[in-house]
Amino acid sequence: MIQSRTDLAMESMGTDSSFPGVDVRRWEEGDVQLSEVVIRTEEAAQALGKPCGSYLTLECRPLREHDPEARIAMANLLGEELSRMLKPSDEAPILVVGLGNRGVTPDSLGPAAIDRTLVTRHMLQSEYASPNMHSVCAIAPGVLGVTGIETVEMVESLTGKLHPRAVLCIDSLAARDSGRIGCTVQISNTGIQPGSGVGNHRRPLTRETLGVDVIAVGVPTVIYAATLARDAFALLSGDGGHEEALSSMERELLGTDLGNLIVTPRDIDAIVKNCATLIAGGINRALQPNLTESEIAAMMD
Amino acid sequence: MIQSRTDLAMESMGTDSSFPGVDVRRWEEGDVQLSEVVIRTEEAAQALGKPCGSYLTLECRPLREHDPEARIAMANLLGEELSRMLKPSDEAPILVVGLGNRGVTPDSLGPAAIDRTLVTRHMLQSEYASPNMHSVCAIAPGVLGVTGIETVEMVESLTGKLHPRAVLCIDSLAARDSGRIGCTVQISNTGIQPGSGVGNHRRPLTRETLGVDVIAVGVPTVIYAATLARDAFALLSGDGGHEEALSSMERELLGTDLGNLIVTPRDIDAIVKNCATLIAGGINRALQPNLTESEIAAMMD
Amino acid sequence: MIQSRTDLAMESMGTDSSFPGVDVRRWEEGDVQLSEVVIRTEEAAQALGKPCGSYLTLECRPLREHDPEARIAMANLLGEELSRMLKPSDEAPILVVGLGNRGVTPDSLGPAAIDRTLVTRHMLQSEYASPNMHSVCAIAPGVLGVTGIETVEMVESLTGKLHPRAVLCIDSLAARDSGRIGCTVQISNTGIQPGSGVGNHRRPLTRETLGVDVIAVGVPTVIYAATLARDAFALLSGDGGHEEALSSMERELLGTDLGNLIVTPRDIDAIVKNCATLIAGGINRALQPNLTESEIAAMMD
Amino acid sequence: MIQSRTDLAMESMGTDSSFPGVDVRRWEEGDVQLSEVVIRTEEAAQALGKPCGSYLTLECRPLREHDPEARIAMANLLGEELSRMLKPSDEAPILVVGLGNRGVTPDSLGPAAIDRTLVTRHMLQSEYASPNMHSVCAIAPGVLGVTGIETVEMVESLTGKLHPRAVLCIDSLAARDSGRIGCTVQISNTGIQPGSGVGNHRRPLTRETLGVDVIAVGVPTVIYAATLARDAFALLSGDGGHEEALSSMERELLGTDLGNLIVTPRDIDAIVKNCATLIAGGINRALQPNLTESEIAAMMD
Repeated sequence: MIQSRTDLAMESMGTDSSFPGVDVRRWEEGDVQLSEVVIRTEEAAQALGKPCGSYLTLECRPLREHDPEARIAMANLLGEELSRMLKPSDEAPILVVGLGNRGVTPDSLGPAAIDRTLVTRHMLQSEYASPNMHSVCAIAPGVLGVTGIETVEMVESLTGKLHPRAVLCIDSLAARDSGRIGCTVQISNTGIQPGSGVGNHRRPLTRETLGVDVIAVGVPTVIYAATLARDAFALLSGDGGHEEALSSMERELLGTDLGNLIVTPRDIDAIVKNCATLIAGGINRALQPNLTESEIAAMMD
Repeated sequence: MIQSRTDLAMESMGTDSSFPGVDVRRWEEGDVQLSEVVIRTEEAAQALGKPCGSYLTLECRPLREHDPEARIAMANLLGEELSRMLKPSDEAPILVVGLGNRGVTPDSLGPAAIDRTLVTRHMLQSEYASPNMHSVCAIAPGVLGVTGIETVEMVESLTGKLHPRAVLCIDSLAARDSGRIGCTVQISNTGIQPGSGVGNHRRPLTRETLGVDVIAVGVPTVIYAATLARDAFALLSGDGGHEEALSSMERELLGTDLGNLIVTPRDIDAIVKNCATLIAGGINRALQPNLTESEIAAMMD
Repeated sequence: MIQSRTDLAMESMGTDSSFPGVDVRRWEEGDVQLSEVVIRTEEAAQALGKPCGSYLTLECRPLREHDPEARIAMANLLGEELSRMLKPSDEAPILVVGLGNRGVTPDSLGPAAIDRTLVTRHMLQSEYASPNMHSVCAIAPGVLGVTGIETVEMVESLTGKLHPRAVLCIDSLAARDSGRIGCTVQISNTGIQPGSGVGNHRRPLTRETLGVDVIAVGVPTVIYAATLARDAFALLSGDGGHEEALSSMERELLGTDLGNLIVTPRDIDAIVKNCATLIAGGINRALQPNLTESEIAAMMD
Repeated sequence: MIQSRTDLAMESMGTDSSFPGVDVRRWEEGDVQLSEVVIRTEEAAQALGKPCGSYLTLECRPLREHDPEARIAMANLLGEELSRMLKPSDEAPILVVGLGNRGVTPDSLGPAAIDRTLVTRHMLQSEYASPNMHSVCAIAPGVLGVTGIETVEMVESLTGKLHPRAVLCIDSLAARDSGRIGCTVQISNTGIQPGSGVGNHRRPLTRETLGVDVIAVGVPTVIYAATLARDAFALLSGDGGHEEALSSMERELLGTDLGNLIVTPRDIDAIVKNCATLIAGGINRALQPNLTESEIAAMMD
């Protein structure tokens, strides 16, 4: 089965509610729908185009109306999930990596989130150190066309130097359903795969390449034009079933000019800004459990 | 006949090479394809969804590869056409208006072009005045949601105060063919219509509302998702002919979430920057025929 | 008596605690020091280089350490004072004007505050209107060198069109004491004077020129290099008394290259951002007394 | 002898035209004044507060009037000097490092210059490779307070990974004479010292720490307020000679609030932008001798 291009594991199963080798769990907390997809077998990984591992999705449609309470609720849940995955245990820092290109709005979520993340590693030996602080450092490595350096080269050389406990990557994603743009967060323990994300990474950032745990947090900011066209065709032709015909169609469209086009909401600049605030809020809560929000805010300005 | 949404007059005729009440002329200069569409009758205006008047299109595909020579060639042609339309005759200033929203990349062409336009009105009574300078002033009025003021209210009140010889509006447009994004410039003498542009103006900026000639210069930066879906459907279904079925389909799509989605190339930030430089270059040449490029550059920094 | 250049009325009295024709009152609320200077006579206005009227100063040094609670306390007090001065009485909008240049950091407070101000005028006739909303519109008119249009021309033409109940101007100021940069807000009912502000306005924005009340809100973001040199000289020479010698010295310095130099803290970008948030927060509270902060935040994003 | 704070070697000699252990040479090319200071002995290094090595200064006052021809002349000379110092000989890349903080205007020269530098390393194995291209990669590592990572840690880990032939650092400098801001470029072969630059680096970037040649290019964008006060005092007191008294004064001033203040021209945003274009222009000419300017421009957009 060939799928529309999506970076969300929950979408890669299509309309199927179960899939051999995959565990799916769904639940709600307040206005937030959560779903966990655990890919257990290599066959399932192959079929879904995603490596084995756990993918947690938090979805909250009121975020699209810029509801500040939805943002706080999501940041809290995200903080809880991240602190569960990062299980603090020693003094080594967490390295937060903001993937993507500052100069391309829908690809700028990572760098924008880095700007709002509290870094503390440099303060821990200083007079400003507090015993409550955990060590955090952060970079936005830029993209290959801007630096001439592969992201993985940069992160690899830094992990060799800084010996972080884990790497936490933030990235802009492509979704299949436009309704998920800007209101869905995916957290996974599988790192970053080649060809994923809006900026399309060439080489993986994973435990294999970096030697430490790699957690990925992403928000869909685009859908691909070929995906949109395919889904519109399915909708209009009343022909949702002929998966194979649709997929060959999509491949054909990708060969045209459409392959370079992305589809976003008009207010994508505001969406990226709000989601960066949400993601950084969740990260700050997870990484600095001993600091109040007001202490974090004062240190950030 | 109902058409896909496009702000380009040359696209609104669809595949028809002639149309009753419309004169069309096409020619080339170097790498630039020019076409002039003159809508002469109210019936044609109605059918094409564009008011009577002249629409000149300059198209140069190498612009999309960021070819600097293509940019210079286009700026030169644009300068010639604008100086023909603005026929300088007295001391009154030209008011250049950069429409659109700085915070929404594909809608920011107008404000970005304003930043690169040489303004001189304030220097003409000063010691820096040169007898070679023509009077130019410029504003980026912002959008209704940011100011609470309709663009037409702002421009109308300024024209009442400054008595410009003409108003020159710059705007981001929607096209039908994605291949025209970022490499096509449309100049028209009909001003700005309600519902046109990426930011969708509510009220017209025309000779009727402002009392002076209104020239509009625009570059397509988006296509609408519904247009894309429609065209993909036509392509895939091998069914280019059933215009009516396609149009009803497009209307249906506009009623879904798709109505808020726009389609752009990934490198839209760079496209807008380059096109703003091109447009401002053409305007500066047209409005300051007695200054060299190097004099203009020195005054701009 | 000739004074160092300052836009703060409270500083223009120098070290004198009283001055003929001027009423001064000082008090505290929490961490905020308030002082009100009322200039009552033309002689005093002449001597202090400020027109007759009331100048209220709020000062809170912890703001410089980016204390978020200080910011909230200041925004609350500012909101109270502004709502007292603007006495809502009818349906006409308030026009908020962000003076200064976005491209010059210490002069960008006004435009940055406008970006954070809730505008509502355009919603009041729409389906989104709430009976709780007051009418507010806002512009950042830019500076003469960028638009070729005097700020007063732009505001005058808009007030003629929109008939606002009052104009509220936000501007970056010059102080004499560097300790006041970024932690002091001045509110006055005298409008904006020529030669004041960091951007040095040429013509006044006052009740006389605009025909409606003009309230000015400003924060010092710079001191002038000549002022600094003068004060350093007084400090170092142990010679605070010879006012006349110092002033002639300062005039001399202004004739040198120093006249174009400004002195700011290194973190002026962060200071401007935080003060813009504070000022907009105070304005939103004053102008929308019936909306909660969370409702305002949701409408702003 | 204690000196005012300056990062320019030519200023650190004060008004002395010769100094034991230091060779000084001055000459002109067109409108550009060049001076080369070579510090030969440890005693001279100690006395001047700069390590042994060569410091070349290019100065061109018309740059401050934003003269585009001055910019081209300076970029050409800079290109020649850099190509002399970098003596290309093998396939290893040059790593260009833009020091400083994007969010602090006078400290943002380095990152801004990186944005305008042509990077090619990633193209050399691709279909876009040209035999004429030399390998260049670039980073803007940010500042300690933003990343929690010392610049030297980041550059050291990257040089270990990429094995560049040389590191070329770009930084904002402090000068003593405000007339040199924005119109002077210093090139040195001594790398970056602790405490130098506007952002005040903590640890050196030198051949010793990085294992490869480190060339530093800088432009003064600020003077320190204490330096200004000291020089103003010397000027005003007609007492240029008592160096010791002045220096103790300056130290005293540094202990006050003045220590955090910087002095810049009002148009520092434009100065940084223009100087970044100049520096990147010189670097691109030096590092890509086989490409024309128009080829470089086309690859940059």
